[in-house]
Amino acid sequence: MQTPWEYRYSQRMKRMKASAIRELLAVAERPGMISFGGGFPAPDVFPVEEFKKACISVLENKGPEVLQYGSTDGYVPLREMVSRYSIRSGMNIDISNILITSGSQQALDLLGKIFINRGDRILVESPTYLGALQAWNAYGAEYITVPVDEYGMRTDLLEEALRTGPKFIYVLPNFQNPTGTTLPLERRMKIIELADRYGVPIIEDDPYGQLRYEGEDIPSVEILDSRVREQNGTYTGNVIYLSTFSKILAPGLRLAWVVAPDTVIRKLALAKQGTDLNTSAFNQIVAHEVGQHGFIDRHVEVMKKVYLERRNAMLDSLEEHMPEGVTWTHPEGGLFLWMTLPRDLNSTEMLPETIEENVAYVPGEFFHPDGSGKNTIRLNFSFCCPDKINEGVSRLGKAFKKKLAH
Amino acid sequence: MQTPWEYRYSQRMKRMKASAIRELLAVAERPGMISFGGGFPAPDVFPVEEFKKACISVLENKGPEVLQYGSTDGYVPLREMVSRYSIRSGMNIDISNILITSGSQQALDLLGKIFINRGDRILVESPTYLGALQAWNAYGAEYITVPVDEYGMRTDLLEEALRTGPKFIYVLPNFQNPTGTTLPLERRMKIIELADRYGVPIIEDDPYGQLRYEGEDIPSVEILDSRVREQNGTYTGNVIYLSTFSKILAPGLRLAWVVAPDTVIRKLALAKQGTDLNTSAFNQIVAHEVGQHGFIDRHVEVMKKVYLERRNAMLDSLEEHMPEGVTWTHPEGGLFLWMTLPRDLNSTEMLPETIEENVAYVPGEFFHPDGSGKNTIRLNFSFCCPDKINEGVSRLGKAFKKKLAH
Repeated sequence: MQTPWEYRYSQRMKRMKASAIRELLAVAERPGMISFGGGFPAPDVFPVEEFKKACISVLENKGPEVLQYGSTDGYVPLREMVSRYSIRSGMNIDISNILITSGSQQALDLLGKIFINRGDRILVESPTYLGALQAWNAYGAEYITVPVDEYGMRTDLLEEALRTGPKFIYVLPNFQNPTGTTLPLERRMKIIELADRYGVPIIEDDPYGQLRYEGEDIPSVEILDSRVREQNGTYTGNVIYLSTFSKILAPGLRLAWVVAPDTVIRKLALAKQGTDLNTSAFNQIVAHEVGQHGFIDRHVEVMKKVYLERRNAMLDSLEEHMPEGVTWTHPEGGLFLWMTLPRDLNSTEMLPETIEENVAYVPGEFFHPDGSGKNTIRLNFSFCCPDKINEGVSRLGKAFKKKLAH
Repeated sequence: MQTPWEYRYSQRMKRMKASAIRELLAVAERPGMISFGGGFPAPDVFPVEEFKKACISVLENKGPEVLQYGSTDGYVPLREMVSRYSIRSGMNIDISNILITSGSQQALDLLGKIFINRGDRILVESPTYLGALQAWNAYGAEYITVPVDEYGMRTDLLEEALRTGPKFIYVLPNFQNPTGTTLPLERRMKIIELADRYGVPIIEDDPYGQLRYEGEDIPSVEILDSRVREQNGTYTGNVIYLSTFSKILAPGLRLAWVVAPDTVIRKLALAKQGTDLNTSAFNQIVAHEVGQHGFIDRHVEVMKKVYLERRNAMLDSLEEHMPEGVTWTHPEGGLFLWMTLPRDLNSTEMLPETIEENVAYVPGEFFHPDGSGKNTIRLNFSFCCPDKINEGVSRLGKAFKKKLAH
């Protein structure tokens, strides 16, 4: 008898679909492929020597602790480091406001677990981060979308969306994934004000905040919200803030953090315990060791230089190789830019053809909860060196021109 | 305005309760505390030198790969290593049947995610592993219990329980957590036969299978099930098998694996992608490096020697210090034994008093889905050295005697 697994799967499972990113990551490993698909940091910039020193040091000095189970909240010195880092950026928090997670993806999953009942509506930018949709689809989330223009979320359309009763607002203010756009101060203030008026919490996802290549830093929604509250004499924030070591140190560690009111942190920790008990003590202690004495600040400066060069290489190549009618964003930081093709081109349908030509991207429709955006594309510029970027964009340009000629 | 978080939490969250283990782990770090609470391996046996060598080697030779995102299924050479290890033990599988997870706790969470709808009943041993209940409570599981005696699950009561329509059977056949009991071959065969007859899959959790200190190995339910199927000419198994590197290498890595039919592995990987994208490439590559050339087999022999000594120390100390009316199991392997106090003693109520005396354990009721077993206790014997075991058991004995004298 063959066990009939299919009919046993949960309702939740039936809502999950295999993702394009997954297939892409597999394909992108093929030799000769130029991948603009994943959100991969530049592998040639990883601080390998520092990691080696840190591994030796922590294994020699703290071997038993490094290899043992850790606490669910996270390694205390690492939480203290994140706390100092957050306070320096202007946050009014302490260690009780911080939970270490196994990558930001886990933070998104845990937020789904503690907040989302089947049918709850989440207000998201359209397009928005694909991984958040994947995490929350599993809990039966539905979505209210607010479109993104070149300055991020269209806050002039936010109040109308808030009237439909979302459970929370999910926003990526800095160098948004997937569009690369950045929310100006006024729009951030508008989101804070409206969220407060409608009593809707904000989840601010900020994986790339440190990676700004031009223009001035803008305070995070978390910081702006707490400033407003301090003026009003109320101290409990309305923002849950996510960031990660994946983009400022290395994604191979799977280390990220949540900043939130302590009551929310306690609930997240409870959910985390049933999910993976705790995040690797090994990775946390090594990350703390590498990150000491200002190393992360210095390393971010190195990465910014490399990524600025790659962003510029991509912008120049697009200018050179793209046919008329193709437009793209000009990101001030982060890892991605967003391309819009003439309306009758379908980027999902074209992907197998460009993969034949050894160049890969993520089709834009996967970032739209409603499946729109079929003529859009997310391009990553952090992973490949400038020469490859130029070659890959040239291949893409040829493929689009060929299609448009038909 | 203070944001009222409480009313926003999901139904799921409202079913999650803070666990005794969590509090215990915090308390167990207090200096002077002798903890029989956690399922911690002996920290003095961790192969620290081997980890140091492996870290140096993989960072020097594969730095960029080690620090980058990995694939959701897991690092291929590690999956191949697990596959060889499984085949050697008698399993008829290949790499497509293996998923690497962030600890076995994640495997339990993912199984909940892909299988459990709210109200689904899971057939479990009573008592059973607390972490499975924590993982599945979040998905709204309910439980059908079959009691455990000194030989594990009472299979004479299994058919009656199966008639109530469980979604799957969850069983820990070797040195069960929490009781330390081992299912004899006949009971394993009975579970396989009844599961097949009632069309109910089996989840076999086997974290300690390698850690046998006396008696003969018994084939896993997974292997016995596939043997039956081969005889019948049907090859799709009815068992999902879980095991982990936490007990044979180090829990600080957070590395475990699932063996299952490939259709189930694909669903688990899809769920995993939304949960944490992938398990740390760093940890997987290091574990593979450490585990090469038969190291794990040699290391398991070292651990078995140490744990046998500690188990014997605990059995001897119990014999010496426990008052009349207290009984305990005699585990042939694993990390735990199970103590039953006279019926009117409540181990949860007594815990704060024994913690005052600097000795900790996990109260047995937390392993019972129905909250029974209030006069039972789980004792871990792997974490403390024999002297501390003797001292801790002596303190416990005094506390119980004092209580019984009242």
